[in-house]
Amino acid sequence: MGDFTRVGREKMKITVPTLLVDKKKAIENIKFMSEKAKRHKLIFRPHLKTPQSVQAAKWYKEIGVNKATVSSFRMAEYFAGEGWDDITVAFPVNVLEIDRINSLAEKINLNILFTSHEAVSLLSEKLKFPIGFFIKIDTGMRRSGIEPDNFKMIDDVLNEANRNNKLIFKGFLAHYGHTYKAKSTEEIKSIHEKSLLELKRLKDNYKRNFPDIIVSVGDTPSCSLMDNFDGADEIRPGNFIFYDLQQWRNGSCSLDKIAVAMACPVVAKNEERKEIVIYGGGVHFSKDSFVMENGVTAFGYIVNLNESGWDLPDKKSYVSSLSQEHGIIKASDELFCKAKIGDVVGVLPAHSCMTVNCMGRFHTLEGEELSVMQN
Amino acid sequence: MGDFTRVGREKMKITVPTLLVDKKKAIENIKFMSEKAKRHKLIFRPHLKTPQSVQAAKWYKEIGVNKATVSSFRMAEYFAGEGWDDITVAFPVNVLEIDRINSLAEKINLNILFTSHEAVSLLSEKLKFPIGFFIKIDTGMRRSGIEPDNFKMIDDVLNEANRNNKLIFKGFLAHYGHTYKAKSTEEIKSIHEKSLLELKRLKDNYKRNFPDIIVSVGDTPSCSLMDNFDGADEIRPGNFIFYDLQQWRNGSCSLDKIAVAMACPVVAKNEERKEIVIYGGGVHFSKDSFVMENGVTAFGYIVNLNESGWDLPDKKSYVSSLSQEHGIIKASDELFCKAKIGDVVGVLPAHSCMTVNCMGRFHTLEGEELSVMQN
Repeated sequence: MGDFTRVGREKMKITVPTLLVDKKKAIENIKFMSEKAKRHKLIFRPHLKTPQSVQAAKWYKEIGVNKATVSSFRMAEYFAGEGWDDITVAFPVNVLEIDRINSLAEKINLNILFTSHEAVSLLSEKLKFPIGFFIKIDTGMRRSGIEPDNFKMIDDVLNEANRNNKLIFKGFLAHYGHTYKAKSTEEIKSIHEKSLLELKRLKDNYKRNFPDIIVSVGDTPSCSLMDNFDGADEIRPGNFIFYDLQQWRNGSCSLDKIAVAMACPVVAKNEERKEIVIYGGGVHFSKDSFVMENGVTAFGYIVNLNESGWDLPDKKSYVSSLSQEHGIIKASDELFCKAKIGDVVGVLPAHSCMTVNCMGRFHTLEGEELSVMQN
Repeated sequence: MGDFTRVGREKMKITVPTLLVDKKKAIENIKFMSEKAKRHKLIFRPHLKTPQSVQAAKWYKEIGVNKATVSSFRMAEYFAGEGWDDITVAFPVNVLEIDRINSLAEKINLNILFTSHEAVSLLSEKLKFPIGFFIKIDTGMRRSGIEPDNFKMIDDVLNEANRNNKLIFKGFLAHYGHTYKAKSTEEIKSIHEKSLLELKRLKDNYKRNFPDIIVSVGDTPSCSLMDNFDGADEIRPGNFIFYDLQQWRNGSCSLDKIAVAMACPVVAKNEERKEIVIYGGGVHFSKDSFVMENGVTAFGYIVNLNESGWDLPDKKSYVSSLSQEHGIIKASDELFCKAKIGDVVGVLPAHSCMTVNCMGRFHTLEGEELSVMQN
């Protein structure tokens, strides 16, 4: 069996699909974003749904980050249990989780999102502790939120909230995640600037009555690429800690910034089709894909694992399909000749957030196992 | 908050995305397939990757099933720990897991799959206990396996295996899963019959030297729809226990046979787009999709949850997109008017196997929680 089966200077013997994280790269990505936030005088509240790991979250803590974003109350509980005491749940509040909300609000500074006065009213009835709330604004993604010119709906939320002094208005929050699908930096810039302008207008409009409100934004593409954050007070990017091929394709990162790779055993080869079958499928990667430069959809690029991590991909070999446990690599002649059954190849994933979630754990190159919040 | 928040006669209060299983339907699906196997004198070796649950696996045991198929050695260990002692790992053998293979082969009747003489040779070196093996044949899916006319490769496997008397040749195994994408029952029939003919020829060719070999097949579409299994000795379908919308679309089941539905809280509504935002995204459903009758891709149909389970979908409301935690429903006027924030709606999933894997647990309508093998 090939040398590939061991990475990290013999510290780890890989026998099954294993998600590797280059901790040094991840920490560099965190520092890059943290320093950018400081430079622009922005509150840095990273989204922890990407690593979903209390151990990886310490990498943020170690450089002074103490505010977090999460995507569910369960995830808020998970991080609150490890000393994170200022958390925004960036998801339209699920009023059915009122017990969890009360229990969290008793212990930590919790911020939630409202997109309607109905949710305010339902929550308000049973809320026992003070809680911060943002009004979620839809600046064009068309997923959820109130449109920025819909003052009627915004006022309805504020009027309903005003009846309960436990509800503290924190400001306007947006996630213009349509930047993920942008075709150019210009397009990202255009979405970013339009969104910030709309949010700034809203803040200006309401700050007479609410002088402390802020504007919170923060998809990874805008936060990575933009240099003008006028109008924003807080950023909440998540994916940038690891990046991935989707982010590389929209220009948010170079390939050497991608901090995760899946190590997958080679189980079969097909000479005629120049295909390599790996143990590594949809249950490991999720089924998120990216579009290669030639327009073909793929699920990952193949990289050579080495003693200190992995080489950059030559982009000639890629994962062309995934079923539950199988992955099929369309291999370059070079890779096809080199890779033997029993070797382990690396795969840069299309979408790191979903891959981490599927895997439930990851390993640093030094062989340390990091746990991920369990489903 | 609506009545929807409680299902199963008040036994279960749903507050977060919850995978419901209609145990009665699941058991009926199992009985249907088991009886079909008996009628055709086929060994029934269901694929347990769909429920991935030792508790649900008991439903098979209770009607006398004692042979299983799984998709990884880890899954084999999981079921072996609960008394399953005759397991086929239907995946090209991953030789790196030799320690696990030896430990399993010591305890249970374990069958593995070979697709090349290289894998035989690598495994053979370190194998300590007798093990059964099938040669995986590719009858047209083009994922893995040896093509049925490639006698050279088959003989290479057999010759290599012949050098180790712990390796017991069990026969030929195929998974013609391209039936999943078939557009008609005729197309499924054509794939099924062509595959069986090829496999039967292989068996006839080798049975002089190996009189006990069998032919093992079994994707859910063929097993559900076909009535001629001449040439097959064993079937290994998995998905049929729960079915899903992908199977419904290829004609393998009617909508009333689908035995799982995700209960999802309603968190927001958009009047203009007639969209409902649910708590329920890619981390719950996976991102597998199906194509509706009008050619549009969707991630699930909406169903009304009722006291004894769920109504059939009217197919007018569907999940149009999924992000990590959000699902967006394109709602009929009726559903849009009726569904309120704080309600719970049901969603029939596109691909039940992946959904079960994402969720990590499910609940019967009687409120019993069933665990799923953890990642």
